Amino acid sequence: MGDADAPGAFTLEAQDGAARAGRWRLPHGVVHTPAFMPVGTRGTVKAVAGYELEALGAEIVLANAYHLYLRPGHELIRRLGGLHRFMDWQRPILTDSGGYQVFSLARINEVTDEGVRFQSHIDGSSHFITPELVMEIETALGADVIMAFDECPPGRADREISARAVERTQRWLERCAARFDELAAEGPAQVLLPVIQGGTDLDLRSQSLARARTVRDWAGFGIGGLSVGEPRERTYATLEGLAGELPVDGVRYLMGVGYPPDLLEAVRLGYDVFDCVAPTRNGRNGTAFTASGPVNVKLAAWRDDASPIEPGCGCWACGRFTRAYLRHLFMAGELLGLRALSIHNLYFLTDLMRGARSAIRSGRFEAWAEGWLARYGLSEETR
Amino acid sequence: MGDADAPGAFTLEAQDGAARAGRWRLPHGVVHTPAFMPVGTRGTVKAVAGYELEALGAEIVLANAYHLYLRPGHELIRRLGGLHRFMDWQRPILTDSGGYQVFSLARINEVTDEGVRFQSHIDGSSHFITPELVMEIETALGADVIMAFDECPPGRADREISARAVERTQRWLERCAARFDELAAEGPAQVLLPVIQGGTDLDLRSQSLARARTVRDWAGFGIGGLSVGEPRERTYATLEGLAGELPVDGVRYLMGVGYPPDLLEAVRLGYDVFDCVAPTRNGRNGTAFTASGPVNVKLAAWRDDASPIEPGCGCWACGRFTRAYLRHLFMAGELLGLRALSIHNLYFLTDLMRGARSAIRSGRFEAWAEGWLARYGLSEETR
Repeated sequence: MGDADAPGAFTLEAQDGAARAGRWRLPHGVVHTPAFMPVGTRGTVKAVAGYELEALGAEIVLANAYHLYLRPGHELIRRLGGLHRFMDWQRPILTDSGGYQVFSLARINEVTDEGVRFQSHIDGSSHFITPELVMEIETALGADVIMAFDECPPGRADREISARAVERTQRWLERCAARFDELAAEGPAQVLLPVIQGGTDLDLRSQSLARARTVRDWAGFGIGGLSVGEPRERTYATLEGLAGELPVDGVRYLMGVGYPPDLLEAVRLGYDVFDCVAPTRNGRNGTAFTASGPVNVKLAAWRDDASPIEPGCGCWACGRFTRAYLRHLFMAGELLGLRALSIHNLYFLTDLMRGARSAIRSGRFEAWAEGWLARYGLSEETR
Repeated sequence: MGDADAPGAFTLEAQDGAARAGRWRLPHGVVHTPAFMPVGTRGTVKAVAGYELEALGAEIVLANAYHLYLRPGHELIRRLGGLHRFMDWQRPILTDSGGYQVFSLARINEVTDEGVRFQSHIDGSSHFITPELVMEIETALGADVIMAFDECPPGRADREISARAVERTQRWLERCAARFDELAAEGPAQVLLPVIQGGTDLDLRSQSLARARTVRDWAGFGIGGLSVGEPRERTYATLEGLAGELPVDGVRYLMGVGYPPDLLEAVRLGYDVFDCVAPTRNGRNGTAFTASGPVNVKLAAWRDDASPIEPGCGCWACGRFTRAYLRHLFMAGELLGLRALSIHNLYFLTDLMRGARSAIRSGRFEAWAEGWLARYGLSEETR
């Protein structure tokens, strides 16, 4: 940290209460924060093409090392010129290590300090993943930002399990760092970030953070293991406590958070970047995000409605399609509907982050967020 | 016919043997022929957006009156400003009457001279469609070109059934014309075309054509009831015989034909416009059209292949994605793959028609088509 031109450098531009606006410099471009990262797990943001992501203002997308390791294979992607070339996306990419996916999707046979033995959720094939292998996968993929391999326990795990995960995550981080240094010498410029674990126990979180910082000066921190089933108040309390200990000059990536109220709360508490499948998954299920809350496009009220999803919205779908047409596409099971709603929802969150950034820079974040949330909460009653 | 500026006017620009190059003037623009029409049955070309159709060079798309009548309803589309506005497509549209769909998709309860009583293939609801109702549906939709309601017997129907279908199609055409004239006075500019039936019996085809021409001077003719299961040589023989009787100054729309060799043969015989679900359906099934024949993108040979589907192809997908990436998208079941292959296949046919047009205009159609077909036939042996 310190050198504002180094890859991964985070420059704090404005602070409003704890909320932060910043610039995150990465090898493929600058990310203006707060920022939402669309999720392209398997090297494609579902139903959306790269130029549509650019057009809606996405500055970075996320892909998943675990999924791409299993299919089509990281060495294949390396041979084809890396993930940017493979998926036709020239802006920054962040790869998640797959810690969360290994523990949530695969059938695990054995977890030891050495690594995790598991069976693929795709074809049942047997694999042994170590921190070193994860670094080999992520450097082969060539994303701008790569996450260290962590152990991610379930959201309601007890303290003992969480403490053990922190221990193991730390030992794995040290091995990730060592292997990354060996690999980084020959590969493209990449930024490795540690993942902080510890469940909703603030002591454990502090410990996880403090120990990660003994390894080296990191360009930022991923906060893992939240939004995985624990009560929301405990998530917020943990985030608030942890924020006070995180260094000011590093990016803070809260992993897996993406519902609008959660995003605003996390921004308020001082977190910078986020990812979640919510906008695309909801879009494919026919739920559109609107300023007054989520709406099901199959609603009878939309049958004859000539307005766009959200009047005034600048997204591709709202510029072209009526609610009636989108409803028709979903009723008929037409693919264009999945794309239109995915783009709208991604635009919605990207635009929400732009709004937050602007409010922070002008010192009116609290009032802006309060107004936004009050309007958003209306949906359950009015629709 | 005669007035080159009238809606629906077809201007023959060049002829090479029987093959024709022309301009078809429609209310929303000019279609350069030979032309392939992408099929947007329910008001959307599956997986492809309007601006992508424009970019690949489509000058007209087809939609289906039967499908849109059942869902979302033609009156709804009229209230929302018509089909062009509904589906965000400002170039010409042709609506098929749904004759073929009624006879192939619906559960038919009764066919009389008055009309067809059937049950919806969507929800089993009961409907009675008459030629007059079809005109009401198609004028409500507001396409540039609308097809008369016809009876379409199966491809191997015997002469008696075909003869009866010709009779009924003729009586229905008279009623369509009468109702269209009443409705046309108030609606947008539209061109009504008759459908010629008669199976593969040239006498019946001649009869159907001659009788249709007694109703009025048509701007062109739809040729229905071919490519519906009859032997291909009989299709070609019928098309060849009928072409000699069709007026030179009217457009000739061969309905439902779209596989590359069939398209070239039909162009050679003097037909101008075509439609088929083949490019989009094949695309969604993972088959890519290439100059050396159709290819399954899941082929193991594509696993590591850094080239585009078709080297030199100008389509959106070939400009961005490798075969390896497209294969990955299909193996993983990702939606972007459906879009990419649909666009490629539509571009392929659009480009094939552009090539045919250019060859006709320079008087070298036969040699060009022969070379094209020789290369296309290679695929079965070489892949």
